[in-house]
Amino acid sequence: MTSHSIAVIKGDGIGAAVIDAAWEVLQAVAKGSGFALHDTAFPWSCDHYLETGAMMPADGIDTLRRFDAILLGAVGWPAKVPDAVSLHGLLLPIRKAFDQYANVRPHRLLPGVQGPLRTDRFDILCVRENTEGEYAGAGGRIHVGTPHEVAVETGIFTRRGVERILRFAFTQARKRRGKLASVTKSNAQKHSMVFWDEITRQLAAEHPDVEVTSYHVDAMAARMVTAPESLDVVVASNLFGDILTDLGAAIQGGLGFAASANLNPERGAPSMFEPVHGSAPDIAPLGIANPIAAIWSGAMMLEHLGETAAAERVMAALAATTARGIGTIPGKDRTNAITAAVLSALS
Amino acid sequence: MTSHSIAVIKGDGIGAAVIDAAWEVLQAVAKGSGFALHDTAFPWSCDHYLETGAMMPADGIDTLRRFDAILLGAVGWPAKVPDAVSLHGLLLPIRKAFDQYANVRPHRLLPGVQGPLRTDRFDILCVRENTEGEYAGAGGRIHVGTPHEVAVETGIFTRRGVERILRFAFTQARKRRGKLASVTKSNAQKHSMVFWDEITRQLAAEHPDVEVTSYHVDAMAARMVTAPESLDVVVASNLFGDILTDLGAAIQGGLGFAASANLNPERGAPSMFEPVHGSAPDIAPLGIANPIAAIWSGAMMLEHLGETAAAERVMAALAATTARGIGTIPGKDRTNAITAAVLSALS
Ligand SMILES: CC(C)[C@H](C(=O)O)[C@@H](O)C(=O)O
Ligand SMILES: CC(C)[C@H](C(=O)O)[C@@H](O)C(=O)O
Repeated sequence: MTSHSIAVIKGDGIGAAVIDAAWEVLQAVAKGSGFALHDTAFPWSCDHYLETGAMMPADGIDTLRRFDAILLGAVGWPAKVPDAVSLHGLLLPIRKAFDQYANVRPHRLLPGVQGPLRTDRFDILCVRENTEGEYAGAGGRIHVGTPHEVAVETGIFTRRGVERILRFAFTQARKRRGKLASVTKSNAQKHSMVFWDEITRQLAAEHPDVEVTSYHVDAMAARMVTAPESLDVVVASNLFGDILTDLGAAIQGGLGFAASANLNPERGAPSMFEPVHGSAPDIAPLGIANPIAAIWSGAMMLEHLGETAAAERVMAALAATTARGIGTIPGKDRTNAITAAVLSALS
Repeated sequence: MTSHSIAVIKGDGIGAAVIDAAWEVLQAVAKGSGFALHDTAFPWSCDHYLETGAMMPADGIDTLRRFDAILLGAVGWPAKVPDAVSLHGLLLPIRKAFDQYANVRPHRLLPGVQGPLRTDRFDILCVRENTEGEYAGAGGRIHVGTPHEVAVETGIFTRRGVERILRFAFTQARKRRGKLASVTKSNAQKHSMVFWDEITRQLAAEHPDVEVTSYHVDAMAARMVTAPESLDVVVASNLFGDILTDLGAAIQGGLGFAASANLNPERGAPSMFEPVHGSAPDIAPLGIANPIAAIWSGAMMLEHLGETAAAERVMAALAATTARGIGTIPGKDRTNAITAAVLSALS
């Protein structure tokens, strides 16, 4: 029997509840599909930081490296630990260490979910560059605290970095409806974004079967709410992808439905799967966190592990659940009730 | 009789049609309100570039300096002149030369206009920093054309620049509902955005009567579609403001309704008023450009010139027009018909 070993990091706040739910669903589908999932849990979190002084041990990355995939809940608890520490001590180092350069986020409405838009006709796959660009961290400040203080923040784009994310996006477009929207702001950022546009044009010539359009990020943000049905695969830099995927989450009914994969497409290191939502410490004690985004992320993990049929079963069970009106309205159904409905839809 | 001298730059494409409409409305309200508006037209545009080799003459900025305000249509005609030339030859130099650091854009639905959101309850004023930040233009590329090419793009934020836009935004919040949302991405951009957050906190202490909240730009993009009614004044950097104001235009029914002011609040140089939309050369011959955004921008100009009652009359006439269903659906009514309806609502 095939077996996959998964590193499970529940993290903070609602991370535990949604990952417990996702894991139960993943185990059920594995059992029914004839493969095994083994989990090893890591208690890395803000509490772990308060106990040990680090979000994860010094050999954390080495430890994770031997797993087939990483399933992450949510990291961060600003009242206990500044985001600068928690995110830069766990989430971002994992993305970088394992070269998870493709952050993939599907945006569509599950049946029965009402989003904020009048239209419900859209099915978008956002592909976000996840390792460089505007989040390179380069920069600094001078004349600190004086009236003459200046802060600079430098985005760094490499040809390798831009080319590989675009190639990945072209591949996704070929698997879907054959349309790729590349997002830049080359009329105002004349170095990095013109560079990105040039590479897009070069790769477009290699992929004549994919219909490529370049949009400015401002126009794309507008398009996602005025004509989302016109979009298929959307590829963007780290910052632009970050913004557009939160907007994508919003139009698909909110963060309760937003799943994501941080992929290393060459499989040289494990990929990581996480709901887009944060740890929401305030609602954690209430038992009402929506596990759908985490379960959906689990389905993306199964897909990545080659368990396509099982992934499709999970997605069908999610759709059957929301079609019954369960889990569709934030805070209405308890985490347990939603999970139970998904499990019963699976069987 | 008070008299205001206005530099009018129609620009490209539909710029002429919408500015002609706006000017007619402005003249009508001036006549009825007891002040005079004098226009001096400048033919600066992409056609001008093709004739003369420059978007505006070398002394263009000096010429504009003596006017009380500038009314601009739209600049750019990519098929004739690259955006890099047209925008950087006219629009952006004017914003910078006259230190129009506050780009102000109101986002609300005129009566009868149906936006893409299910809700119609919002009234947001976006304040965008307009002179520095991510659009500083600093950066470059090395190893050009090789596999090792790297492009960098540096955002530059000065304390003076950040402080003055925030102060302006606080002033606007005081004139409205007393709420200010400051937008950054300080969990990923640790130099510039942490700097912005620090200055926001300092100014918040000076303005205890304003309720200030900081949002990450991704969360703000989501909030503008999921809970726009929670927002009053939104202040953001050049790039973030650019993105959020296109999103704001989208939720208010599209670019046909998006007005803007590029303000020099200290009045050391003229301010510029322009619809957010582009020149749309493809629809220019059809006579169906919506003049509402340009007329609304004209009302913002009157307000800036101290003609508050006249500005309110123009806004009331716009509301009366759209409430009758005129100008509410893109392409349905001709520019002339919409203008005529606004003029008759004025009288
Ligand atoms: C928490 C933050 C650093 C993170 C990011 O910007 O990458 C988050 O917004 C996301 O989208 O995964
Ligand atoms: C045309 C472009 C340079 C401009 C900008 O980004 O400032 C436009 O998008 C705007 O919002 O006024």
